[in-house]
Amino acid sequence: MSAVRNVQVRLRNRPQGWPQLTDFDIVESSLPQVGDGELLLRHRWLSLDPYMRGRMNDAPSYVPPVALGDVMCGEVIAEVLESNNERFAVGDRVYGDLGWQQYSVRHGKTVRKVDPRVPESANLGAVGMPGVTACVGLLVIGQTQAGQTVVVSGAMGAVGSMVGQIAKIKGCRAVGIAGGPEKCRIVTAELGFDACIDYKAADFREQLKAATPQGVDVYFDNVGGEISDTLLTRMNDFGRVSVCGLISHYNETEAYRMKNMRLILVKRLKMQGFIVFDHRDYYPTALKELAQWVAEGKIRYRETIAEGLRAAPEAFIGMLRGANIGKQLVRL
Amino acid sequence: MSAVRNVQVRLRNRPQGWPQLTDFDIVESSLPQVGDGELLLRHRWLSLDPYMRGRMNDAPSYVPPVALGDVMCGEVIAEVLESNNERFAVGDRVYGDLGWQQYSVRHGKTVRKVDPRVPESANLGAVGMPGVTACVGLLVIGQTQAGQTVVVSGAMGAVGSMVGQIAKIKGCRAVGIAGGPEKCRIVTAELGFDACIDYKAADFREQLKAATPQGVDVYFDNVGGEISDTLLTRMNDFGRVSVCGLISHYNETEAYRMKNMRLILVKRLKMQGFIVFDHRDYYPTALKELAQWVAEGKIRYRETIAEGLRAAPEAFIGMLRGANIGKQLVRL
Repeated sequence: MSAVRNVQVRLRNRPQGWPQLTDFDIVESSLPQVGDGELLLRHRWLSLDPYMRGRMNDAPSYVPPVALGDVMCGEVIAEVLESNNERFAVGDRVYGDLGWQQYSVRHGKTVRKVDPRVPESANLGAVGMPGVTACVGLLVIGQTQAGQTVVVSGAMGAVGSMVGQIAKIKGCRAVGIAGGPEKCRIVTAELGFDACIDYKAADFREQLKAATPQGVDVYFDNVGGEISDTLLTRMNDFGRVSVCGLISHYNETEAYRMKNMRLILVKRLKMQGFIVFDHRDYYPTALKELAQWVAEGKIRYRETIAEGLRAAPEAFIGMLRGANIGKQLVRL
Repeated sequence: MSAVRNVQVRLRNRPQGWPQLTDFDIVESSLPQVGDGELLLRHRWLSLDPYMRGRMNDAPSYVPPVALGDVMCGEVIAEVLESNNERFAVGDRVYGDLGWQQYSVRHGKTVRKVDPRVPESANLGAVGMPGVTACVGLLVIGQTQAGQTVVVSGAMGAVGSMVGQIAKIKGCRAVGIAGGPEKCRIVTAELGFDACIDYKAADFREQLKAATPQGVDVYFDNVGGEISDTLLTRMNDFGRVSVCGLISHYNETEAYRMKNMRLILVKRLKMQGFIVFDHRDYYPTALKELAQWVAEGKIRYRETIAEGLRAAPEAFIGMLRGANIGKQLVRL
């Protein structure tokens, strides 16, 4: 056993609807010895993401759920404290799915070193899974072409904020959908989208129409539900809907029922769900391009930072309710 | 003016819900002179298809609606009675979108000669638009591979019956969905599908599950609505839904609301609407292959034949209600 004491956040209950603080346990534990090829890692940054809500359910999904009593899953940037692997030196910064905890012992092959040109936390956002997700949905699934109109929901989120900025780099009109005037202001004034619409506004449909005078060629869907249903009415013929997330569904006990599905045929739309992990081959290309854009200052990002592992459950619940601005992180 | 008297079926009213006989006018009229490059055509076979119901509405769709007072649109096999076009001889059989009428005068470039190896009426079905539609949805949109499971709704219809037979030729498991035990019997016993499920059966879901032990890779959707919603629950990861028709929607005044849309993401499905007319380049390839299969006896088809143009409205309404077995035709 290592002398280091670990702290972990574990799943206590499977929530019905919105998660609560009592659905998590915060537990002290010990760490195993560092074996051959393994590393002792001190976690520095933990990413909090909407998909984690899905992992708290027992329903079949694209990955198995977190078991009751297990450490919550999550991407982490960590520092190597001890190394029994010649590919890693003490002090290296690495990325891995290491979970909601302060330390871990992992084999070197389960983590990768991060690009030193990029700020550490950005490896969990702009130059991490959310950035690659934006590239896959926009370019691979969405087949976005210069001159087209891209709409993205959750525009102020870690993925959505990247979608619009990459769309702009690629020569598209970028329209965001976000919750509340402050987020909408940041999306246009700071992130450079052409427009952003508050989905809470009473005249959402009219605003959407005004913001997409040429219709919509690609809708990057992070939310599902009624917003997606409305978007179908604005799609151009042969438009693409990249279905990336369903944040509006995660905490609903009854699914929203789509009424505009006939438009899939009438407009010959393609609606396709995707998960970034299915596109492993595309990661190196995307990460290299994203790191370059960040290094050149072409991509801006906001972060909301919670301090300390014990703050993670509350920060997670807040994120699901839209309290964060940009990428939600925990500094450990 | 030609001496020939024409009879036409024109659209009188736009139906709300199910069309009625009183929505059509049957009118005698004269024909224009046959100009340069033009043909006088005697119509021999008229095709009746579900998409025509959509054209009776004023709602925006992929093609403009039939105007009130205009001849109903429809594909026809005709005989050349007079020719002012060197590419056509008297007696040639041609295919064209010539409408619900007994005669027409058209320029030669708006029709094409049909394959003489194939029975005349089959050029409106197996070796016509329905056959090409089946190929596009199954092979181009659905990317069907040998060994996979294909499910098709409207399995006894002109398109659906081709989908399952082509799936079998391509080495797939073919499962049909049809209305009533007699249609289901024909789909398996005559058309050679592996299974066929009656959507009117109380245990439809259980039958579907039993008929697709390996799940569903391609769902060829001719109906939309609740059947499609149920199919989503049987799709395999990365499955494709080719949306070809929405017969269940055409006569409903309120759209069915899909509740299983989250499965698009969870299973990374692709749902894509298509219209055969968008795939003009693919026609010659498909027609050649289809004619070959029919000539070799690899494709079987049923026809329901109404006699005379005046019977067309009633036959059309019957087809929408599922009274036909196989391709619905009118012999003129």
